[in-house]
This record gives sequence, structure tokens and C-alpha cells, in this order.
Amino acid sequence: MSNVLKILEQGLTSEGLDALLITDPKHVYYLTGFASNPHERFLGLLLVRGEEPVLIVPALDAEAAHAASSVKNIATHSDTDNPYDLLRQRLQGKKLRAVGIEKEHFTVSRFEQLAAAVPAERFSDIGHLLRSMRAKKTPEEVAAMKHAAELVEEVLRRGLKHVKAGVSEIELVAELEYLMKKLGASGPAFDTLVLSGPNTALPHGEPGSRIIEPGDFLMFDLGLYAAGYASDITRTFAVEEADSKLTGIYNAVLAANEAGIAAAIPGATFGSVDRAAREVIEAAGYGEYFVHRVGHGLGIDVHEYPSLHGLNEDIIEVGNVFTVEPGIYVPGVGGVRIEDDVFVSENGAQTLTSFPKALTVLHL
Amino acid sequence: MSNVLKILEQGLTSEGLDALLITDPKHVYYLTGFASNPHERFLGLLLVRGEEPVLIVPALDAEAAHAASSVKNIATHSDTDNPYDLLRQRLQGKKLRAVGIEKEHFTVSRFEQLAAAVPAERFSDIGHLLRSMRAKKTPEEVAAMKHAAELVEEVLRRGLKHVKAGVSEIELVAELEYLMKKLGASGPAFDTLVLSGPNTALPHGEPGSRIIEPGDFLMFDLGLYAAGYASDITRTFAVEEADSKLTGIYNAVLAANEAGIAAAIPGATFGSVDRAAREVIEAAGYGEYFVHRVGHGLGIDVHEYPSLHGLNEDIIEVGNVFTVEPGIYVPGVGGVRIEDDVFVSENGAQTLTSFPKALTVLHL
Repeated sequence: MSNVLKILEQGLTSEGLDALLITDPKHVYYLTGFASNPHERFLGLLLVRGEEPVLIVPALDAEAAHAASSVKNIATHSDTDNPYDLLRQRLQGKKLRAVGIEKEHFTVSRFEQLAAAVPAERFSDIGHLLRSMRAKKTPEEVAAMKHAAELVEEVLRRGLKHVKAGVSEIELVAELEYLMKKLGASGPAFDTLVLSGPNTALPHGEPGSRIIEPGDFLMFDLGLYAAGYASDITRTFAVEEADSKLTGIYNAVLAANEAGIAAAIPGATFGSVDRAAREVIEAAGYGEYFVHRVGHGLGIDVHEYPSLHGLNEDIIEVGNVFTVEPGIYVPGVGGVRIEDDVFVSENGAQTLTSFPKALTVLHL
Repeated sequence: MSNVLKILEQGLTSEGLDALLITDPKHVYYLTGFASNPHERFLGLLLVRGEEPVLIVPALDAEAAHAASSVKNIATHSDTDNPYDLLRQRLQGKKLRAVGIEKEHFTVSRFEQLAAAVPAERFSDIGHLLRSMRAKKTPEEVAAMKHAAELVEEVLRRGLKHVKAGVSEIELVAELEYLMKKLGASGPAFDTLVLSGPNTALPHGEPGSRIIEPGDFLMFDLGLYAAGYASDITRTFAVEEADSKLTGIYNAVLAANEAGIAAAIPGATFGSVDRAAREVIEAAGYGEYFVHRVGHGLGIDVHEYPSLHGLNEDIIEVGNVFTVEPGIYVPGVGGVRIEDDVFVSENGAQTLTSFPKALTVLHL
């Protein structure tokens, strides 16, 4: 059994649950190693206290599940079976006071079928249990995320070679997403962002047909999924020359990025990471132009718990992985964001991303 | 008020509902014209019988909603408001026996909050209502889908120019997806498929680094979203020369595609479209190699109701839009699929896709 599954079993006991049913495909992957998209078909990991876990999969996924899942007790159902009947049979005669489900994932439609088939006294939400488990990465997860970070940095390295006279933002996006697939990623973790010149001042700008020009700042925000885990990096470059005002902005963002990373120590709050970065930017006189939180949790989702905003007083723990990505966006001038993926060890933050951060001038 | 919203109001009455709440962002777009991704924030279209509809949006989307929505009665909530309190206030004092919700979209977590705030006697599923509405496209929707089809055909036309000596499957995928964005699509409707040579025999094959070679069959399956509607087309080509066995397979698939389209007349069943195409392929001796249904509904989702399999006895109606995409996949030899998007008019099927279907030999 995987380590995370053991932790979940302990959670089942400590929450006073008799059984739990996991149906979010991401969580099934997280707990068993079996990744799939069951579409409208039923996929579920059933844990009954004191029994072997059982993975219930559509018949057409049986082979793939046997190959990938650490849970070897696999039950299948065909398209003509009713999967809730299958649950009814498995749970018949057991005393079920409380059954845990993911209430933020389970639809009302499915819940009505479950409740009709499984006579539990109550169904409890286990969202918080999985959320806190996912926030503490295992060494295997950190290794997978390190790999996803290395891959995206190789994509960026190769992509930069395509910054040439006449190239547009969307051409660079297409090149980067092509490189992701070529280097073995399953795909982009979000819409790749390449913004140039005045467009860098738009924190939610969309890449367009603008041609890269000398004097531009050029911002890349990209991430990918590899083996189920996300990476997410932002770097900003100067093209041909670095304007002094933009250089000042760059240096403030870089110092804020480093201050945020330095503040990411076990026992501190997530909010203190945001505040550490924000103070640097405020001291440089750009406080009003840092218009977003400093970062977000990263893992099997590219945005997951925790949210690193200034009011988050939850405590940083060893194993947390999140982004640190301060930015300054001055309308009419330009913007800079520098983003790293950070893993919290006993000795403080370690960056999973290592792409150089000193201001680099690209030549067309 | 949009036509579809009027139809939904009639459905509300005929289903005996006092109110309904739409929260699927796709359905909010479908009914109001306002497209958004609210993430974890609350978005809802509230219809109370005999009252003006109201669109409830996160405050940060207020401006975009006012600009795009045909429902002009817009209520906003900030991140510190509880949107269910807002619903409670709006519905206070009204006699609510039955309230309609999308039970396949509403999560248990949200439903518990809704049920605590809104004292309806029962909550009914309105999934079937929206499903049947969406299956009958309005002239405006057909125009949007025609545009999405024209756009994907232009992408294919330009993409074919990149079929040159030394090019790989994934390079062509990257080029096609780049062209989609360049030509104004919001993005691919699904993972673009380019398969070559023996890979064409894999109905669920994934594009890889295989280089296109003379003698290959080369299959393109691509689609895009434009203005909220999907297109989906498959064409198969020969490279440099057309092997006689593959030519025979091609001609069987083409005849099946045309037989399927001819069978798509109002009053017939969806199953008859599948059977018409299948009979042609069986008569040509390839029945065992046509391993999937003949098509699927198309609209604001790339796969939506109806499913065109041989057992679907639902009746084709004017306004339905679906794909007709028979294929033959012979392991070790190769495969061919030809897919069109079809709109059902009073006079029978009209294809939205018009890319030439006669077997074309590409030169490297």
C-alpha cells in the first residue's frame, strides 16, 4: 500500500468514519498511482475500516488499472452494470454510521444514487483530509515535481533560441508548447503566457500577434504536467537593451522573490511569505503595482491549497510545495514577474526551479 | 431575452417548477451569452416563475457580464459575501415547492449550502431539459458552428503545407494548434491527432515523433472552439502514393460517411445513421474493423448528446448537429477515418464541413 493511502487510513479512523469512497480521478491517481479519465463512467476507491482497499474501475480500464495501481484488489463493472449495486453488495450487512466522500467533487446526481444504495447514517466530507495530505508532499512526489521543473526549464532554455527578429508572442507560445510535448511532458499545465513590451504590464494579458522588438521586456510564464505533477515558472528578459526604469523594476521583483523564498520556513505562516515579498516591493515604491497574491500551492493541480495571500495564517510545514511569484505591473511602462517553485525542507525553502534569475539581455 | 432562455422558461412551467438555478458556466453562456470561468466562486442564473431572470456573478466579473449578457438584471457578490445568503434574500417569502437544478453539475457541498438557504420542498433535476434544448440548435448557433467549421478547415488547409520530408506527427500537431490560435480560435476542442503509417490503425493512438514517409496514410483529426462552439473534422491522406489495399479501405470509409450523412433525416433514428454507415463497411468486408460508434452530438461541448450508436432509437430532429465519422482500422495495414459535422435541416442533412473528401495524394 502506498504511504499516502496509509495516512488516509489513519485519517479514516481519527475522523470516526466506517468507510470512505474516493471518486475524484486525481485523488484515485494520488492514492493508487492509477491515472485515468473515466468520463461519465464510475471510478471509485473504497476503503472500509479494517479491510483491504478496493479499486472499482470500468471494465475497459481493467488492464491499465492492474498495471498501474498499488491497490491490487480491483473490481470492474461493465457499461450494463449499475456501479451503485456493486457498492450495495460490497457494503451489505456492515454497520455504517459515517461514510466519507469528497463533497466538493461528488455531484448531487451521483450522491442520490449512492445514498439510495448505501444505507449510511451520515455522509461526511473528507475534502479537508485530502487537502492537508496533498499539501505535504512525500519524497517521491518532490522527486516528480523536481523532474517537472527540470523539464519546463529545458523547454524555456530551448524556447529562448526562437526569440529572433520578427517572431511574435503566439509563435513563441506554439514553440514552447511543442517543446513540452517533444520533451515528454503530458502537456501544458495552463495556457502558456508570452507577453512583450507594454503587454507585460497586463497581469492577465493574453499572448497575441505582437512582434518582439528591441527595448521590450519579454515575460514567459509556463508550466507542464509530467507523471501527474505540475511545474510553473516565470522569467522576464530584456530584448537587446534594458531600459533603466525597467531594470529598477526588475531588481525590486528579484529581491522580493528572494525575500519570499527566504521567508518560507517551517513554522512561519503562508501569509508571511506574501508579506516578506510585498515589503520589498513597497520599499522600492511599487507597492500599488503588485496586484496579486505571492503564490499558490502546486502538486497534482497547478493551483491547489495553500493560497499564499497576506491574510493566510496557516502554518508552513515540511513537505509543502508552492510558487513564489511576485510581480510589478506599471501601465504604460511594463511589467516583471519572477516565479520559482519552492519545496519546504527542515532547513527552509529549496527551489525546485533553478533557471538563472539575474537580468538577462536577449539578442534578436 | 434570448430565444433559448424563453424556451427554458416554458420548460420551467411545463415541468411544474417554481424556480430554477443554473450554475454550469457552459449553460450560463448558452442562455445569456456571458462566458466565464468562475473557478471556486459562485455563478448562477436564477429564474423564478413570472419574474425577470437574474444573473448572479462574482463582483470582479460584473463589467464583463454587463457587456456580454442578454440578461441585464445582474447581481454581484464579493469574496466576503455568502452567495447563498443572497439567494435566501431573493427567494424569501416565495412559495417554492419545486426548484430545478443541474444535478449532474451541482456538487454535494454546494447543494448542502443551497438547501440550507432555500427552503424548497424538493429540488428536481433539469439536466434533461437543457440536454434536449442544446440538441436543437438555433440558427444563430448553426451560424457559429459553421464559422468554427470553416476555421478548422482553413487550419487544415494551411497545416497541410507543412507536410514535408522529415516532418513528424507531433510537429504537425504543434503547427495545427498554432494555426488555430493565429486564426482566432480560442483553442483546440480536444487533443489534436496526427497519425501516420501503421499508427493510423490505432483508433486511440497518440501522435509521436514518427517521421512521415512515402507510402504512408496520414490521418488528421482536429477541432477547435470559436465563440463558444466546437468543430471537429477528420481527413485521411495518402503520402506520395496510394497503396491499392488502403485505397480500397478509403473508398469504403468514404461511401460509409456519405451513407451516414444521407441517413441523417428528420424523423429517422440516430441509430439508423450508425447502421447505414456500418452496412456499407460490412458489405466491403471490413465490418470487424469499424470499432466505434459513427458519431456524437456537437455544440458548446465537443461531445454532447446525442450519441450516435446503433442502438440509439431517439428521433432525429431539425436543428440537431452531430458528427458522422466512420473508420476502418486494420492492424498492421493502416486506418482511415473521414469525419464531417452535420446539421439536420427540414430537407435532410447539410454538412458544415466541406473539405474535399476524394482521396488526395500529398507530396513531400
